[in-house]
This record gives sequence, structure tokens and C-alpha cells, in this order.
Amino acid sequence: MSKPLILVSNDDGISAKGVHELIKSLQHLGEVVCVCPESPQSGMGMALTVNSPLRVKKLEDYHGAAMYQVSGTPVDCVKIAVDNLLSRKPDIVVSGINHGSNAAINVVYSGTMGAAFEGCAYGIPSIGFSLTSHDEDADFTPCLPVVDKLVKAVLEKGMPEGVCLNVNMPANVAEYSEMRVVRGCKGKWNDRYEEYHDPAHRPFYWLAGNFVNEEPDNHDTDEWCLANGIVSIVPVLLERTYPLLDEFKWIPNEL
Amino acid sequence: MSKPLILVSNDDGISAKGVHELIKSLQHLGEVVCVCPESPQSGMGMALTVNSPLRVKKLEDYHGAAMYQVSGTPVDCVKIAVDNLLSRKPDIVVSGINHGSNAAINVVYSGTMGAAFEGCAYGIPSIGFSLTSHDEDADFTPCLPVVDKLVKAVLEKGMPEGVCLNVNMPANVAEYSEMRVVRGCKGKWNDRYEEYHDPAHRPFYWLAGNFVNEEPDNHDTDEWCLANGIVSIVPVLLERTYPLLDEFKWIPNEL
Repeated sequence: MSKPLILVSNDDGISAKGVHELIKSLQHLGEVVCVCPESPQSGMGMALTVNSPLRVKKLEDYHGAAMYQVSGTPVDCVKIAVDNLLSRKPDIVVSGINHGSNAAINVVYSGTMGAAFEGCAYGIPSIGFSLTSHDEDADFTPCLPVVDKLVKAVLEKGMPEGVCLNVNMPANVAEYSEMRVVRGCKGKWNDRYEEYHDPAHRPFYWLAGNFVNEEPDNHDTDEWCLANGIVSIVPVLLERTYPLLDEFKWIPNEL
Repeated sequence: MSKPLILVSNDDGISAKGVHELIKSLQHLGEVVCVCPESPQSGMGMALTVNSPLRVKKLEDYHGAAMYQVSGTPVDCVKIAVDNLLSRKPDIVVSGINHGSNAAINVVYSGTMGAAFEGCAYGIPSIGFSLTSHDEDADFTPCLPVVDKLVKAVLEKGMPEGVCLNVNMPANVAEYSEMRVVRGCKGKWNDRYEEYHDPAHRPFYWLAGNFVNEEPDNHDTDEWCLANGIVSIVPVLLERTYPLLDEFKWIPNEL
């Protein structure tokens, strides 16, 4: 039996420490091919390049993994890998390890999760991993047993159709003792654009803000786990249809 | 009682015909403020600008609507409108009218729906409208009664928390007689990147492909409606958590 084919991507770009650590931790589990954006793509969600072309550059192998950089988004990376670069459909898509949390509402804006959702759209079991630290030189050592255990489990068990995993790991924990399957926490970004002026006195704006947890006392959420040193695993849906269509009987049919 | 405040956005950019037609059809329903990307943002989904600043430019009013262009994505437009530009929270966010279908899986990549989902994240009732024609000069006349009827109904009834509407209208229909609340159709993009070579003989790649409907005989989907001249309304979820967490008991807790 051939070794599993593992497609790795991320949104911090191919030079980020997080993806290098991920590749090292995956190399013993199968054949690893890494296809990542050439530049940081944080916050790109499921953005897809449709109105311009992509460039692809093959780099030197890294710890046995073939390395490609793509001038696009995380979704573009997974698409061009599956459609054109890989010799067969990968057995799993692993995205990350992201520098920064993708818990709660962040999952919808996350490029890391964009790559995982795109794997899911191809029917490939997919996982996105994130560490809750934006430090470029963050210590990913505690993450490696989580990656190992989950990737092995998913390679063995597969995933329900249209579902992938959003895994977040709390920073500043020397060794995790637990991971839990939980739901995404309810909460909002309390944000505001700061106004600046350029040297020509023209205004520009930069997004600033903080996440407000709307249910800090509920123990079954990803944010609660992260606040308590526990790794959170949220199974997330690619599907968007609201299941209770009968609630919309007030919409008229006639025009 | 003051008039409803209607925030309009889109992903085709502020010069697209679709958004101009939308503004004209909304002007009698309330105070309209339009905040759109300065350039086309098709396929940008919920992408958000975090690592660079935004520019905002106020343009001349159009049919009584205040007009702003933003150097970012549809999500950026809704965010900066609600956070900084508007004097109060809008009563509704209306996005579109998109030039092209956002039915089925397209909802996840759609910038039009990105703006609607972002409105939803603020707790604002939100609707995205799309016409299944990419023609820059498409005839939006048949869409206007749909917009009028749905916007009035949603202003009156509101929306369940975390849900917004993905409305698609079939092109080449002189007058719609029906709209239906349905689910997003199952299907996949059968895509492939075409390879080209630039004048310096370096390769570049462009996404090509077609949508494959995996359930053409089911009548309760958006694609079926569109194929049969009916307007489709799919209530869609911002929330991502898969509801059946018990299916994941095979994931170990110990590390």
C-alpha cells in the first residue's frame, strides 16, 4: 500500500515558521507536498482568484516535502495543487500551523480555514491548525503531538461529507494534556477603523479592535477551552443552507 | 418614525450596472447609503483587509444615495460603513445585484454574499441578490420587483439571528412569476488551470471550469429553480459549527 499523500497549505505564506514546523511533524506520516501562498494571506477566507492569472514556482524540497509557492490565496493553492500539480487526489489536506487564533467567528475570515474548506469541497478530509500567538518566532513544539494524533486519527477514520476540523491551540502552554471537540463560541469583533494621514495629508484607515466573547461562562466552546489551556477542535460545515426552511413561510411566492 | 437606513454594497465594484439598478429600486424604501469596492472583487468571499490600510473616497450622490468607494473587499465595505461612515446601525444590508450566479457552492466564494454575511455578523438583516448573467450590460429590469418585495418583507419581519438570504434570479426571463425558498444545490466545480506563456516564455495559469449539478432531478434546490425560470431564495448560515458533535467521539481527548 502506498503512503498517504498529504497536501499542506497555509495563509501566512511559504516562509512562515508555522508551516515549516507542520511539515517536519508530518514527514513520518506520508508523502508531503506543500503548496502555499508566496505572500501572507491572513484574513482571505475562501477568496479565490478569478480575474487574474496565477504564477507557480517550485522551490527546493524541505525535509523531504516538495515545495511550491503560488501567487494567490490559500484556496487557489489547494485548487491548483489538486487540479494541476499533484499526481493523484491527496488523502488529507492539512493547513497551518497558523500564527494566530482562528477560534469563534474568526473561522469565517481565516485563510488557514479557507484552505481546509477548499479541501473539504473536493471531498478530501481536511484540518486547519492554529496557535493563538501572532509571534513570527512562536514555539510550535507543544503543537506537534496534537498534529500527529489528529492527522493519524483522520487518516484512519475519514470525515463526514462537507465537514472539516478547525483546531486551535492555546499559546504559552508548555505541554497540552487535553483536546476537546466543542462548538465555535458566540462573539463579535468590537472593531473600529483608526484614521491616519499620509505625508500628503490624505486620510487612510486601519482596522483595529478586539474580540468580545458573548458566552464566557459556557464550557463547551472553543474560546473556553483556549482560555483554560485545552486544545479546541470544532467540526465545521462547508454547507451554508439554514436547515429550518419552514421558518421562512412569510416570504411570498408570487411576484 | 424615521425612514429605514439601507446599506448597499456589492463585489463588482462601484461602477457596475447591477448596483446602480439596485439603488434606483431601493430609493423609495428608505435612506440609501452605498459603500462599494473601488475595483471588482468577484470571488473574494469573506476576505477582510488586515495587513494594509484602506482608502475611502466620497463620490457624488446617485439617485439620492450617498456614494462611497473603498479600496478593499465587500466585507471591508460593510465594516467601515457600520464602524465609521454611518451615523447609526443600518436597518438592512442589501448586496448586489451581482453580475453572475451565486447559487449552490458559489455562495462560499461570493463577494456579494461576503457583504451579506458581514451584515449578518453585525446582527443586521441582510440579503444578497444575483442575476445569472455575467454581461456587463445585463437587463436588471425583471429583478426590480423581486428586490422591492423581499426588501419590504425583510424590513417588516427581520431575520433569525445568524441567517441571511442568498437570492438568485435567472437571466433571460422577461418577467418572473414565482420565487421559492429552497436549499443550496449539491454540486462541484469541475475545474482545471489553463497554462499560458507570457512574452518572456514564463508560464502562468488561469482558472477554467464548469459547475456540475450533482442532483439535477431534485426540485427543492436553487439550481433547479434557476433552470426553470424561478427566483431562488436560500437562507444561509453565518455559523459554521457542525451540529452533530457526538459523531466525533472517535477523537481521543488525551495527549
